[in-house]
Amino acid sequence: MFDTQESVKGNDPDKAVVSAALTGALTTRDQCEDIPYTPEEIAEDAAAAREAGASVAHIHARTPEGSPTFETEAYREIHDAVRERTDIVVNFSTGAIDVPVEKRVAYIEETAPEMAALNMGSMNYAKYSDSREEFVFDMVFENSFSEIREFVTAMADAGVKPELECFDTGHVGNARPLVKHGDLDEPLQFSLVMGVLGGIPASVENLAHQVRQLPETATWQVIGISRDQWPLCAAALSMGGNVRVGLEDNFYLPNGEMATNAELVEQAARMVRDVGREPATPDEAREILSLD
Amino acid sequence: MFDTQESVKGNDPDKAVVSAALTGALTTRDQCEDIPYTPEEIAEDAAAAREAGASVAHIHARTPEGSPTFETEAYREIHDAVRERTDIVVNFSTGAIDVPVEKRVAYIEETAPEMAALNMGSMNYAKYSDSREEFVFDMVFENSFSEIREFVTAMADAGVKPELECFDTGHVGNARPLVKHGDLDEPLQFSLVMGVLGGIPASVENLAHQVRQLPETATWQVIGISRDQWPLCAAALSMGGNVRVGLEDNFYLPNGEMATNAELVEQAARMVRDVGREPATPDEAREILSLD
Amino acid sequence: MFDTQESVKGNDPDKAVVSAALTGALTTRDQCEDIPYTPEEIAEDAAAAREAGASVAHIHARTPEGSPTFETEAYREIHDAVRERTDIVVNFSTGAIDVPVEKRVAYIEETAPEMAALNMGSMNYAKYSDSREEFVFDMVFENSFSEIREFVTAMADAGVKPELECFDTGHVGNARPLVKHGDLDEPLQFSLVMGVLGGIPASVENLAHQVRQLPETATWQVIGISRDQWPLCAAALSMGGNVRVGLEDNFYLPNGEMATNAELVEQAARMVRDVGREPATPDEAREILSLD
Amino acid sequence: MFDTQESVKGNDPDKAVVSAALTGALTTRDQCEDIPYTPEEIAEDAAAAREAGASVAHIHARTPEGSPTFETEAYREIHDAVRERTDIVVNFSTGAIDVPVEKRVAYIEETAPEMAALNMGSMNYAKYSDSREEFVFDMVFENSFSEIREFVTAMADAGVKPELECFDTGHVGNARPLVKHGDLDEPLQFSLVMGVLGGIPASVENLAHQVRQLPETATWQVIGISRDQWPLCAAALSMGGNVRVGLEDNFYLPNGEMATNAELVEQAARMVRDVGREPATPDEAREILSLD
Repeated sequence: MFDTQESVKGNDPDKAVVSAALTGALTTRDQCEDIPYTPEEIAEDAAAAREAGASVAHIHARTPEGSPTFETEAYREIHDAVRERTDIVVNFSTGAIDVPVEKRVAYIEETAPEMAALNMGSMNYAKYSDSREEFVFDMVFENSFSEIREFVTAMADAGVKPELECFDTGHVGNARPLVKHGDLDEPLQFSLVMGVLGGIPASVENLAHQVRQLPETATWQVIGISRDQWPLCAAALSMGGNVRVGLEDNFYLPNGEMATNAELVEQAARMVRDVGREPATPDEAREILSLD
Repeated sequence: MFDTQESVKGNDPDKAVVSAALTGALTTRDQCEDIPYTPEEIAEDAAAAREAGASVAHIHARTPEGSPTFETEAYREIHDAVRERTDIVVNFSTGAIDVPVEKRVAYIEETAPEMAALNMGSMNYAKYSDSREEFVFDMVFENSFSEIREFVTAMADAGVKPELECFDTGHVGNARPLVKHGDLDEPLQFSLVMGVLGGIPASVENLAHQVRQLPETATWQVIGISRDQWPLCAAALSMGGNVRVGLEDNFYLPNGEMATNAELVEQAARMVRDVGREPATPDEAREILSLD
Repeated sequence: MFDTQESVKGNDPDKAVVSAALTGALTTRDQCEDIPYTPEEIAEDAAAAREAGASVAHIHARTPEGSPTFETEAYREIHDAVRERTDIVVNFSTGAIDVPVEKRVAYIEETAPEMAALNMGSMNYAKYSDSREEFVFDMVFENSFSEIREFVTAMADAGVKPELECFDTGHVGNARPLVKHGDLDEPLQFSLVMGVLGGIPASVENLAHQVRQLPETATWQVIGISRDQWPLCAAALSMGGNVRVGLEDNFYLPNGEMATNAELVEQAARMVRDVGREPATPDEAREILSLD
Repeated sequence: MFDTQESVKGNDPDKAVVSAALTGALTTRDQCEDIPYTPEEIAEDAAAAREAGASVAHIHARTPEGSPTFETEAYREIHDAVRERTDIVVNFSTGAIDVPVEKRVAYIEETAPEMAALNMGSMNYAKYSDSREEFVFDMVFENSFSEIREFVTAMADAGVKPELECFDTGHVGNARPLVKHGDLDEPLQFSLVMGVLGGIPASVENLAHQVRQLPETATWQVIGISRDQWPLCAAALSMGGNVRVGLEDNFYLPNGEMATNAELVEQAARMVRDVGREPATPDEAREILSLD
């Protein structure tokens, strides 16, 4: 029968999964000194985020100097360090521009995290500065179906749950032939990324639109970039969605102060409670997201 | 040019107007002991709400015993008492079932508050209890165009800004012929009421839909009833909307504790700040809402 | 799995049910000389509409002089006359302002048509003329839950399938407690009426919104009033919806010529084919609408 | 003030611009023998389409053997041939995979058609066959901001009106920084392409969503691919939109018969009239689309 808040989909209306995107790949300590680089630092942030209410840690590996790295060894060390400290769900990134698919597939196969990101389509990935009146960067983020399917196969073989990162409406639709073809199994977990120039613009209207595209059994979270993060969090939580915060996506609390990963998660957890829900524990998240 | 958050309409994206609906007409101290009845109590609550971040007080008059009253004298005493204590914008209710229009028009004309509610259409006004499996009440809330126009004329003559209370999509549309006919002047202030059985169900999807119906210059707030209040507040604030809270609409904080008017406003003000906005002062609210 | 045209709901994507609203209650032969009044005339129009592609005839009884009548005998004569001529599904109106519910329930119980209209809520029912700059009429159309439930009970007892007439978003939502309470059984058949002042305004945007409110198993048709009829027909047919046309709703073909019921149905049937669908036969309509 | 059919945007509610996409680049006469190849054949089809109700001809050049060509000379011959025969607006394609931007810019600069397509973003461009259960093709269609800006500059210099081809929500949003930066001038003309795998899926819901993203002054048309074309046409025309048909997009009439360009336009023109509008003449189209 009809539900007046149909946007919940497969999520839990009472428990919200808060993911912490601890590191990212594009930003550095020159911009925000609290970004963790080493496996130790990452594991500490994961544990602190877990304490603050996060149940999933989304991680890009870094060299000790902070450069992005795609070496299996780096991911293995992070995986071990996090596992030693906390029961948080480990979710590894796989996205990159100009890094061979094989390299990115390899560390997923070797480390077999519980979850890994799966970028669901191609798009421009750019930034325009209103104040400087110029395009700050301008790239094409390529993820053909054949590349997507390489990741899907590797994840299936390694028992890794894919997190479908969708930057636009078509990216959500791209899941359809992959399900029909038997590559992906439902229930699917979607991350609705909003606010990257080249993808769908950030607005509550557009979030509601993206959620309407999802299959009934899907679970979903919103990923809001930069200053759009908090309003999108508030709206997604109201709709029954899950949310991702963390230094990969945004450095600042709503009041403009720069924060640590744990502080960002604390803020998100408070917003979860403000709409009458509770942050899920890692085990509750595993159940909601159908992790084995 | 296009705005990625087009739902702001005529509101201020940085300042949110928080209204406090202090009294209501349907509930009593048996249900919630902090409902103010007397002019003194109402004025005290108005001042405390103002302190907590509210810039508008929406008020139904009560007898000292708590019954709803539509006597001009009662409204006058409230008006005087509030004015003595605080600079909050005064907004009087006009809605009722089975009370003659003349009576409700009279106290508006006589007391000339800065704002007054204008109910924009007819609907069933009912409640169904899932647990008791029965209709708890079942009324028809009638507001024909001729009645609406009586109020509009009286408000225009008395310099009172109408707040268009819309319980459904058609109620928003009903403003159109009144503007065309010259009864109402833009910019219009809309209150989007959600969650009364008979009117539009409460959901973020439906809130976005209602906002899409509004003219570009309109200001708007959401009024969420009962447990839907906090999620709707969070979503509306994310969209650039204003919000109403208070014991008329809901007794409880998100954590389930029963609260005072001031505590409800405090919670709302915190949620305003969580999306990166600030509560408007009464004077800022006057400017946003185009009060003279 | 997700369907890219999710608005089909319980309808048949390949076959469209065209209903013909042959008579109505508000208009007269002074305005359109081809409105049928007598049982004979109505039955002839039903047969001609069936020939042209209609599978359901929606009928208001009239006296031989054309006044609306609610006498059981009048409805019985119409029922017999139509049944003699054609296999079209018979659907009787039940809506009226200022006619006792008992009277309107009686002819449904006595004649037991396959379907009957069930008005799902209250609203203003008005008309504003832009050219004359005045309100042409201004009524309140009352249908409290207790009245709705009287009809529902009578229809259930007589084996009549209710057609849920919804003039606004809340009217769709009103079905929810009636299903929960066990009054209505799914699948439900919804008629989305658009373009009456007081209810939801006519637009493709609003039609999509109304359809989103429906339960997954529901069947639905659009009822567009006056000049909005053809655009709404085209849009509804594109979405997988069913449509209603006929002299009750609109006198004119898209080119502005006044038409007969059969000509209006012919136009609708052509539009069905233009989106790659076929008009359903009465027996196909019975299956789609789950009539026994 | 609010318009109940706000999706009209800058279009003409009474006149619909029908574009004919005569040739395309991907299909051949083996699939549909009526695809025109030579300048003569293209000009004849343009004239016949104009006669049938089209006011814009969208053209990809072909060699006499039917291969796509990007030679300036080929475009010049087509331009001359069409201009000799008919007053239809000439609109040249610029999109291609693996053809240097310079080459595609050159023929626009040299031939200066009244309009030219401007592809507004990157995406996967693929096809999955449900029946064969395989991906039929799988490409990445790249259009970085720097490439888009090369086209924009060339078109501005040559006095060519860009037609913003948007295959997804982000593509519409990509116009924003280009307007802010002064590259594009409003009013903008948008083509909302739907139904290519990799871009936004075809549905009325999604069409309404795309239209909501457009600035108020924008004009727009829908481009529906393959069997989705006719339902999208019907819906777009109902919303006040313009439409594109032609052998580039779809070979078939709604009844499944293979058609010529003129027959497809004839069908579209009939559907224009069925919603109470008229096909625009080329001069009316020039005014609606703000061509100089």
